Amino acid sequence: MAHFIKTELTALGVEIELRELGKQEGTDVDLPPIVLGRYGNDPKKRNILVYGHYDVQPALVEDGWNTEPFKLIVKDGKLIGRGSTDDKGPVMGWINCIQAHQKAGIEFPVNLVMCFEGMEEYGSDGLDDLIRTEKDKFFKGVDATCICDNYWLGTSHPVLTYGIRGCSYYSVTVSGPSADLHSGIFGGMVAEPLIDLTHVFSKLVSPQGKILIPGVMDMVVPLTPEEDKLYDEIKYSMEDLYAATGSKTNLFETEKESLMARWRYPTLSFHGVEGAFSAPGAKTVIPAKVSGKFSIRTVPNITPRELDECVTTYINKVWEELGSKNKLEIKLLHDGMWWLSSPNHWNFEAAKKATKAVWKVDPDMTREGGSIPVTLTFEEELKKNVLLLPMGRGDDGAHSINEKLDLINYINGIKTLGAYLHYAAVEPMA
Amino acid sequence: MAHFIKTELTALGVEIELRELGKQEGTDVDLPPIVLGRYGNDPKKRNILVYGHYDVQPALVEDGWNTEPFKLIVKDGKLIGRGSTDDKGPVMGWINCIQAHQKAGIEFPVNLVMCFEGMEEYGSDGLDDLIRTEKDKFFKGVDATCICDNYWLGTSHPVLTYGIRGCSYYSVTVSGPSADLHSGIFGGMVAEPLIDLTHVFSKLVSPQGKILIPGVMDMVVPLTPEEDKLYDEIKYSMEDLYAATGSKTNLFETEKESLMARWRYPTLSFHGVEGAFSAPGAKTVIPAKVSGKFSIRTVPNITPRELDECVTTYINKVWEELGSKNKLEIKLLHDGMWWLSSPNHWNFEAAKKATKAVWKVDPDMTREGGSIPVTLTFEEELKKNVLLLPMGRGDDGAHSINEKLDLINYINGIKTLGAYLHYAAVEPMA
Repeated sequence: MAHFIKTELTALGVEIELRELGKQEGTDVDLPPIVLGRYGNDPKKRNILVYGHYDVQPALVEDGWNTEPFKLIVKDGKLIGRGSTDDKGPVMGWINCIQAHQKAGIEFPVNLVMCFEGMEEYGSDGLDDLIRTEKDKFFKGVDATCICDNYWLGTSHPVLTYGIRGCSYYSVTVSGPSADLHSGIFGGMVAEPLIDLTHVFSKLVSPQGKILIPGVMDMVVPLTPEEDKLYDEIKYSMEDLYAATGSKTNLFETEKESLMARWRYPTLSFHGVEGAFSAPGAKTVIPAKVSGKFSIRTVPNITPRELDECVTTYINKVWEELGSKNKLEIKLLHDGMWWLSSPNHWNFEAAKKATKAVWKVDPDMTREGGSIPVTLTFEEELKKNVLLLPMGRGDDGAHSINEKLDLINYINGIKTLGAYLHYAAVEPMA
Repeated sequence: MAHFIKTELTALGVEIELRELGKQEGTDVDLPPIVLGRYGNDPKKRNILVYGHYDVQPALVEDGWNTEPFKLIVKDGKLIGRGSTDDKGPVMGWINCIQAHQKAGIEFPVNLVMCFEGMEEYGSDGLDDLIRTEKDKFFKGVDATCICDNYWLGTSHPVLTYGIRGCSYYSVTVSGPSADLHSGIFGGMVAEPLIDLTHVFSKLVSPQGKILIPGVMDMVVPLTPEEDKLYDEIKYSMEDLYAATGSKTNLFETEKESLMARWRYPTLSFHGVEGAFSAPGAKTVIPAKVSGKFSIRTVPNITPRELDECVTTYINKVWEELGSKNKLEIKLLHDGMWWLSSPNHWNFEAAKKATKAVWKVDPDMTREGGSIPVTLTFEEELKKNVLLLPMGRGDDGAHSINEKLDLINYINGIKTLGAYLHYAAVEPMA
């Protein structure tokens, strides 16, 4: 993917460097390189940094896809395939922007600084270091940053995003026997790792979504009346949630509570179990070593370190109380900090005008439940405003099966990105 | 496998029929045929029915095998590979018995009636019906049955087995959203099926192995002082358990309690989760539909129907109390009844003498924690004694990785099977 982007951009006259990052920690696997690109060097123009990622979530036909996930299908006005909306489509959008200017013979309005990575779905390994190293070199002179890697809240109204949650992803491993055991022969004689793990996990979160780990909710900033009011403006209905999830499995009955749960409160999700029997049918095995995966989405003012402390202390206490002879190990697989910015900035103004010009409506100002760990790093290191300008819709199925990007969102999305650059080139710096 | 057995036995002059069983219930998949064989038709000889199975448990190198599981490796005095001990090795043993008699020019002592199936690991689909249909036809005149499909209790002392547990295997499916969801976007807004399932499973059994489903323990026959005393005789030590499991994860501190947990009490094991993220690494998904698998090993006087009633009533009650908007479905994937016989029978006497002749020791009389559903059917339908005469050892790793059969157990096992047939031919019918 990195080489594909390099080839495409080089053909358009963009200066490209593939920055190698070394091995993934604890492995012999090369990290995918970061694509650094610069289009234009005019000192009279503003320097706009755009970010995207070319890696995607895992996908198998067996997960329930209607089509081969890694083959792009264009059907019924949709681009269907893994990465169509998250985030290969948007990365293509920036490339298309340059192409469109060249074909139309219009001067590019800004110097475009590009940073496309390949580890976003696994915690952006290596990117933070690169930004710190390059802040006064490759990234020198950046005036604002635009990230196109999230989604509209619903399916019809464009949004700009000024806040995202962080994410700390944990693996809890329980092990005992040296190999899987026959449940007929050993069932009842030995402590089963999967039974232990299930008990531990049942104590992390309630079926109603209440996090049971002491200390986590205490770190959340209290809701003010002003913030509460902001939620009244947002164009979102429970019907959007029903449509996006294909179900009425909502934990809250109102739009406001649902959006607050997504944007301003932490949540804890279970993802699965590694090492247990996971195929269809029946296998009478006692798995010897199982790793349960869960993650916590974090919000102001939870820090990953304090969260780690809460998680580790609590799970160890729960484990102690279980009194099992098996072993338990907690591992933080990756973490990323939440980010909350102010949308009162010329960078956001430019995006508002671009959205209005293309979509004929004012965008809603939203926060996001998902995590883009690099957002905060860009803001903190470059000390410039960061804007999230999404291309896809809330029902695109990012991380799920049958991921799609509506063609109209792709086409109008490219127009919006282009228009944003034109407005960003001239918007008064307030 | 059925065709392989047919070819081998036909070459030895055995009359073979492959009995087709139609489709697996609810699928378009052909059931594997049952191999029915008869070697000898002498009305002056006894008819001994032997049973085995040619199907095996699933196995993947990724599960942790040191060798390719479906390639037989002979190394360090062991036959290594899936099915070596459960139950392809023993099936080969019967074939070798016939070969050995032919090569040595010794008259075969009995008429050997053979029944080798291919669905044992999945509840012996179709076999019960076949036995009922054929009890007065193919199985007519059978004098006793010998099943070679279990293991010594430990690693050094041969045993004969007169009791086994039953097994009821359940799948509990929780579903909600129409597809997997991004945990950043939807985490906190929707009820998560895997969180619900984890809570349900945590209420089935304690980490100490105590079944929490009301009514199950009430069906267990009380321990009498006579039965209690039997356990004092058994050659088994906690060291055997530590060696077999490669750990000290024992739930009980004494041999007697451990063996009772294995033989005379029910146990509930968790096997895994289908539909959740099960690969290494991190995937931030909310699985839309997950099926947890568990099984209960049953003992006198638990019946599968009464157990079903207890399980269903309890899980539905637990589910009600959770108050989730997701859906829950309980499915019984397969069941098999426990079996408990008396070892005071000429069939067992013949096996005792054979064991003594080959291994130079008296076998222990044991029960078994695992399940061979057909044992009871053979006994009830043919109204003849059934003997379990194991070939492998307690540390063979049936259903686990690196399954093996010691060469000495294979060779002496074949000798024991042959000697058993000779004693069974002449043992006075008491």
